[in-house]
Amino acid sequence: MSSQILPDNFVRTVPDGDTHERDVCHDCGFIHYVNPKVVVGAVVHHEGKILLCRRAIIPRLGFWTMPAGYMECGETAAEGAIREAMEEACADIVIDAVLAVYTIPRIAQVQVMHVARLGKPHFAAGPESQEVGLFDWDEIPWDDLAFPSVRWALTHFREIQGQDTFPAFTNPPGEFGNMR
Amino acid sequence: MSSQILPDNFVRTVPDGDTHERDVCHDCGFIHYVNPKVVVGAVVHHEGKILLCRRAIIPRLGFWTMPAGYMECGETAAEGAIREAMEEACADIVIDAVLAVYTIPRIAQVQVMHVARLGKPHFAAGPESQEVGLFDWDEIPWDDLAFPSVRWALTHFREIQGQDTFPAFTNPPGEFGNMR
Repeated sequence: MSSQILPDNFVRTVPDGDTHERDVCHDCGFIHYVNPKVVVGAVVHHEGKILLCRRAIIPRLGFWTMPAGYMECGETAAEGAIREAMEEACADIVIDAVLAVYTIPRIAQVQVMHVARLGKPHFAAGPESQEVGLFDWDEIPWDDLAFPSVRWALTHFREIQGQDTFPAFTNPPGEFGNMR
Repeated sequence: MSSQILPDNFVRTVPDGDTHERDVCHDCGFIHYVNPKVVVGAVVHHEGKILLCRRAIIPRLGFWTMPAGYMECGETAAEGAIREAMEEACADIVIDAVLAVYTIPRIAQVQVMHVARLGKPHFAAGPESQEVGLFDWDEIPWDDLAFPSVRWALTHFREIQGQDTFPAFTNPPGEFGNMR
């Protein structure tokens, strides 16, 4: 599974010594291995409110999400979440815990979501956001959230209020993120 | 970062519209994106003992590990851990919780480790294992563990004994998995 469109010189075949079909270049023999990708992000709170970003990019342009994005090589999951908060919300965040590990098998995505707080009381829209705001629970734009896992993470964050420690959540029962 | 050796027709360059250097085929323009890979596994317990596998494959052939391996597309992290336990230890396991999310930046790996138990009192060496056994804490071959994160996971599993719920662990302080 890949969102990348391959040139015509790739063919689908099982390489020697492999057990799975892969995309292989019939010119040079390059094998295009595809593995699940990791998204890292955080539910960021400040004075009882939650930081959300309105997306300025596809997919789901104009819809709301927490800061999150693809993890890069060479960083930890927490470092990736901190980087994404800076890129998308110009926010300097402090990670406190792992909130959840969600899997979206349809798009082969693992999402490592954290609980974090603003290290400084400042935020602004980065280039990938139309706007960024702090929301009370009742103000959250529930009908305009970008992805099912945004709702999961917010709901799970709500559940752990008042708890010193909590187990990491996974997908809610029966939820696989197949719908938007 | 990639363990895959690329053909000579790949060159290192920043594609149009990108911000990072990538490996690009100068014949067909194919871009070889590399992201962190996900390893899924489980500390499996049965009657107070822990299931360990002696590796029959490189790297670290002959050293001990818990069942774990690369997550495949189309499965959840928990499903991947269950598959790996069956492949490496012929063990039918039941996942109870997320134990830890470790990151090894040097090799761009995220490890999602679970707590699990044997669903049936049976195990055996799969094709990737020389032998599989159940170990009391004092019997664990500490000097012959395959990877630092095996020690982390066993130690973290030990810490949560007697606790109904516990937060997901991350890398121990100062530990980045750079040494074997």
